[in-house]
Amino acid sequence: MAMPKNDEGRRRVVIEGVMPVVDGGRFPIKRVVGDSVRIEADIFVDGHDVLDAVLCYRPEHEPAWRESPLDPAGNDRWRGEFTVDAVGRWQYTLLAWIDHFLSWRHDLTRRVQSEDIAVALQIGADLIEQTAARASAEDAGRLHEFVGRLRGHGTPEARRAVALDAELLAVMTRHPDRRLATRYESELTVVVDPPRAACSAWYEFFPRSCGVNGKTHGGFRDCEARLERIAAMGFDTVYLPPIHPIGHTKRKGRNNSLAVIADDPGSPWAIGAEAGGHKAIHTDLGSLEDFRHFRQRAEQLGLDLAIDIAFQCSPDHPYVREHPDWFLHRPDGSVQYAENPPKKYEDIYPFHFESEAWQALWQELESVFEFWIGEGVLTFRVDNPHTKPFPFWEWVIGEVKRRHPEAIFLAEAFSRPRIMYRLAKLGFSQSYTYFTWRNTKWELIQYLNELTRGEVREYFRPHFWPNTPDILPEYLQFGGRPAFMTRLVLAATLSSNYGVYGPAYELADNTPREAGSEEYLDSEKYQTRRWDEQRPDSLADFMRRVNEIRRDNPALRRNDNLRFYPIDNEELIAYGKASDDLSSIVIVVVNLDAYHTQGGWLELPLERLDLDPRQPYQVHDLLTGARFLWNGPRNYVQLDPQRTPAHIFRLRRRVRTERDFEYFF
Amino acid sequence: MAMPKNDEGRRRVVIEGVMPVVDGGRFPIKRVVGDSVRIEADIFVDGHDVLDAVLCYRPEHEPAWRESPLDPAGNDRWRGEFTVDAVGRWQYTLLAWIDHFLSWRHDLTRRVQSEDIAVALQIGADLIEQTAARASAEDAGRLHEFVGRLRGHGTPEARRAVALDAELLAVMTRHPDRRLATRYESELTVVVDPPRAACSAWYEFFPRSCGVNGKTHGGFRDCEARLERIAAMGFDTVYLPPIHPIGHTKRKGRNNSLAVIADDPGSPWAIGAEAGGHKAIHTDLGSLEDFRHFRQRAEQLGLDLAIDIAFQCSPDHPYVREHPDWFLHRPDGSVQYAENPPKKYEDIYPFHFESEAWQALWQELESVFEFWIGEGVLTFRVDNPHTKPFPFWEWVIGEVKRRHPEAIFLAEAFSRPRIMYRLAKLGFSQSYTYFTWRNTKWELIQYLNELTRGEVREYFRPHFWPNTPDILPEYLQFGGRPAFMTRLVLAATLSSNYGVYGPAYELADNTPREAGSEEYLDSEKYQTRRWDEQRPDSLADFMRRVNEIRRDNPALRRNDNLRFYPIDNEELIAYGKASDDLSSIVIVVVNLDAYHTQGGWLELPLERLDLDPRQPYQVHDLLTGARFLWNGPRNYVQLDPQRTPAHIFRLRRRVRTERDFEYFF
Repeated sequence: MAMPKNDEGRRRVVIEGVMPVVDGGRFPIKRVVGDSVRIEADIFVDGHDVLDAVLCYRPEHEPAWRESPLDPAGNDRWRGEFTVDAVGRWQYTLLAWIDHFLSWRHDLTRRVQSEDIAVALQIGADLIEQTAARASAEDAGRLHEFVGRLRGHGTPEARRAVALDAELLAVMTRHPDRRLATRYESELTVVVDPPRAACSAWYEFFPRSCGVNGKTHGGFRDCEARLERIAAMGFDTVYLPPIHPIGHTKRKGRNNSLAVIADDPGSPWAIGAEAGGHKAIHTDLGSLEDFRHFRQRAEQLGLDLAIDIAFQCSPDHPYVREHPDWFLHRPDGSVQYAENPPKKYEDIYPFHFESEAWQALWQELESVFEFWIGEGVLTFRVDNPHTKPFPFWEWVIGEVKRRHPEAIFLAEAFSRPRIMYRLAKLGFSQSYTYFTWRNTKWELIQYLNELTRGEVREYFRPHFWPNTPDILPEYLQFGGRPAFMTRLVLAATLSSNYGVYGPAYELADNTPREAGSEEYLDSEKYQTRRWDEQRPDSLADFMRRVNEIRRDNPALRRNDNLRFYPIDNEELIAYGKASDDLSSIVIVVVNLDAYHTQGGWLELPLERLDLDPRQPYQVHDLLTGARFLWNGPRNYVQLDPQRTPAHIFRLRRRVRTERDFEYFF
Repeated sequence: MAMPKNDEGRRRVVIEGVMPVVDGGRFPIKRVVGDSVRIEADIFVDGHDVLDAVLCYRPEHEPAWRESPLDPAGNDRWRGEFTVDAVGRWQYTLLAWIDHFLSWRHDLTRRVQSEDIAVALQIGADLIEQTAARASAEDAGRLHEFVGRLRGHGTPEARRAVALDAELLAVMTRHPDRRLATRYESELTVVVDPPRAACSAWYEFFPRSCGVNGKTHGGFRDCEARLERIAAMGFDTVYLPPIHPIGHTKRKGRNNSLAVIADDPGSPWAIGAEAGGHKAIHTDLGSLEDFRHFRQRAEQLGLDLAIDIAFQCSPDHPYVREHPDWFLHRPDGSVQYAENPPKKYEDIYPFHFESEAWQALWQELESVFEFWIGEGVLTFRVDNPHTKPFPFWEWVIGEVKRRHPEAIFLAEAFSRPRIMYRLAKLGFSQSYTYFTWRNTKWELIQYLNELTRGEVREYFRPHFWPNTPDILPEYLQFGGRPAFMTRLVLAATLSSNYGVYGPAYELADNTPREAGSEEYLDSEKYQTRRWDEQRPDSLADFMRRVNEIRRDNPALRRNDNLRFYPIDNEELIAYGKASDDLSSIVIVVVNLDAYHTQGGWLELPLERLDLDPRQPYQVHDLLTGARFLWNGPRNYVQLDPQRTPAHIFRLRRRVRTERDFEYFF
């Protein structure tokens, strides 16, 4: 084993067990602008010397490191934090060193014999002189004064009092000797996204269904009124399925049939036709100018626009003709269509990522993102990323975010756990989840704890969808209107990012294509639909209320603060989220049984919520406006799904004064 | 972000989550010769292709990698193992690739249309031809035959049957296309030690106390009879405190007093005098020749000899004069002695590892190990390693083991957890532990689970000591003879490595220097002692029996198989160890109350022990010879500490035949 070079063998401090970290630092952690990044590490040294340590951090490519203190938290664990105030990649590492002055000072306080103290004072004076040599002129002056007094004529005990002077300590601490400091072996990365990466409410719809004045196929201009409704409902992101020209060859008809009726518009995911591919707009949706107007209208309404990026082609996509080497060919020379034998998807050609021309392919796909960013789109819902190579995603997201760190990528990967987590690690900002199929109390608690309690939360931002155009879950098919309310409350309060396939959700559309299928009957994927937004049973008002509650209660903007509470009924689930300062505390109770009234005793952790067990407190149901006065940790809750299947309580504390009308705040 | 070079972007398989691993691969895991190293990893790819994967492993510096299979274990987890059949450092990594033939074959089985099958057969024939090009002549011949039949005239369905032929699969599997295989990003290391690193029973004694024929100071020749007793008691390692010349300056007298009586021999840890230092032998112990004879006698008796390496000097050590730059000097020019203010240890000079001459110091200390290895010593108990820098230990152990991979280092670091674990990570083969002070059931279970259930077990080999010359724990001071029996059984069965400071343990010496002290009265550290080994109350027979049980029951040679069992009495602790094939199962029940008989219902996991709950089974107490017939999972146990405070049961199953006298084996 080679002997360490230079001074490496003299660097005695050890830094290890740094947290958070993803796969030993192979991947970054994720935060949003304004977050405090809290770091912990084990820091220690042989023997009994006293340590000091700092966190070093900087935006990537900024030459100078900034520093913030690390403080001992017991058992050799140290803690510190820094705030990230801009988007982009930041780096952080740790620096720790033996502080010989602090060690000497600590020993000095414990010395009892005068002669020992006298010798120690000489040693200390030498140390202070060495420090003065690297201090500012002013500090050096003060240090030399102290040296004079330490070497002076008083008794050792009297001079010891000078040596322990707080000012000397302060000046010395400003000039530590870091020549033999240990730097943590790697520089770790945090990707800082805009705040909407951590908290958002998405509304998905098909613009082609918005035709007005009798038009079968709607366009962007027709959709602007809908944007106003979506904004009024409190959503902040509007998401459109692919908006590109749709292929004709092997086009699928209504309900995914192979037989196409003349005016069937085809699936928007069969991308590309004579009019263009991933950088073109479907003629019937309008011109690029119409798209720009639509996007600007969204922006005016405070809506972020997300588009779908599906890297696959219809047989009519220009790529197929222009870049045959990006596709796999069959022995007869035809292009290999998508298939999962015995199923065939002949309207779709996947890219052949094992192609020798992979680099040109990657560059072109990257340019698709760049094109739409040029059009003001910064949020991308990426279709089926788990069927394209992982190295491609790491590169393309890294490349796009290097230039546009505010870009957000949502991974639509309904795949196996390892695959979904890997996609998140290598760059996706947000991820679809299994929430769509997690219905029971046990399932929800297990899954949410996995997402919010361990290392997963450092890189995987869950995005909860109760439905999508591909998925009408069984629970919604059979639970009626209460099921839609229940799943909306769960999605919107368990996860700070959530979304709905909007028109179908508002109107509680629950008819599957056939029994046992999760596909919608007359799915908008293959045809246009008309939605009667004015129907009296619309859930629009309920959705608006839930979004309003999310906006008003900061506790709901995070997931790492989620805690489940015991409630003695398997059909009731209870949980809470609290802001760090406990000024915002939300407690949610949901009846998972869509058919029957259910009641149970809820048990709250009063101490953790900083509630006095001897004083009443108020829970204010933000859905209904009802207020309840509760006492102690155990209180009874009952929910009738035919009325409102959930409580979203804001916790209100008793105020000490009685001069105000409002006794609880 | 730079685009991957060469073919890196086409390597689609991901390998992550490799276990076991220590600090992301920064440190090796540890095993002993003959162990099977079991590896797990997450391995997956985008899309639906079929994977294959192998473990690659080799002794370090051997150019060729060996391979063993990895098999899928569900949820993208793969498992494999390899056996390490020689001491030294081994490397291992993982290799995984898409097997296009297997993917193709999988799809082929699911195709239903004749025309699809026909096209697939053409694609398959191409694949097989490509494989033939890299196969042996014989295999290539077979493959070409298959290609002929696949391209032949039968119906597609008939030719499909040929394509699915098991022989074709076998030949194809021998020649996978690994050009785009993914190799795990790092090569991990396993340090393979001799078996005694994992299982040993140590006996410590002071050779100077063995004087015969009226000699005050014993020597090596006097100790040889003692070696025979130690071997007869079933110990396998004999460990001696430092055997070097002892300093005179500031020598400590009896019971650590500052006043020295003329013939006080001093502490063996005050190393070095006129006669030499760390490579010399104390004259009164004998010559180097005597030492060699002693070591050879130990070897003949099957005893491994361990010596104490304490890197510190008495003021009279030759190093102090010859290498003043290896020590810290005080302002008056004197050498800084060891201190922990207000305590002083003026008979000890620590090395100054921050010295600019650190490299020469490291080299010299390394040569101390080399010297004793030259004398046939391969086991080193290292004194207070936590007061010397971590980088030094990593280097010196690495360097010694590179040349002598069979060397073993036991870290005597009774320090904080992070420090003890770091020393183990960076190379110590075995470690002292907190067992010495863990007495209650809760303490023992907590601590043993920490040591045996998590990552710690991959690098930290606990060595349990119920006493040492420095530590007479409170439990032994007050519990009398039962306490000594209890702690011996716990040490010897909870941990596969254990040791005792022998003479004091045999005779249950429990007198502290003063109340509240863990020091022995008249400690052998400062004086010679006479031990009456023939005393009728000696524990020697009990110790022999316990060691015999350890030797006869392979289940006791490991720790990762330890499981605690419920028993409904806080004073009783119950646990078991089983060999992988369940041929050796040991169940231990210990009464932790040294004063009173305690009883309780023990609950055994019958299913895990492969016991039929409807059949009786026998537990055979190997300490007393008693046999009990038990039924079902719950059975009653009662232990009187005045008789034997523990059961060490061997589990005996009912044999199916009644022709033998022994119904249980």
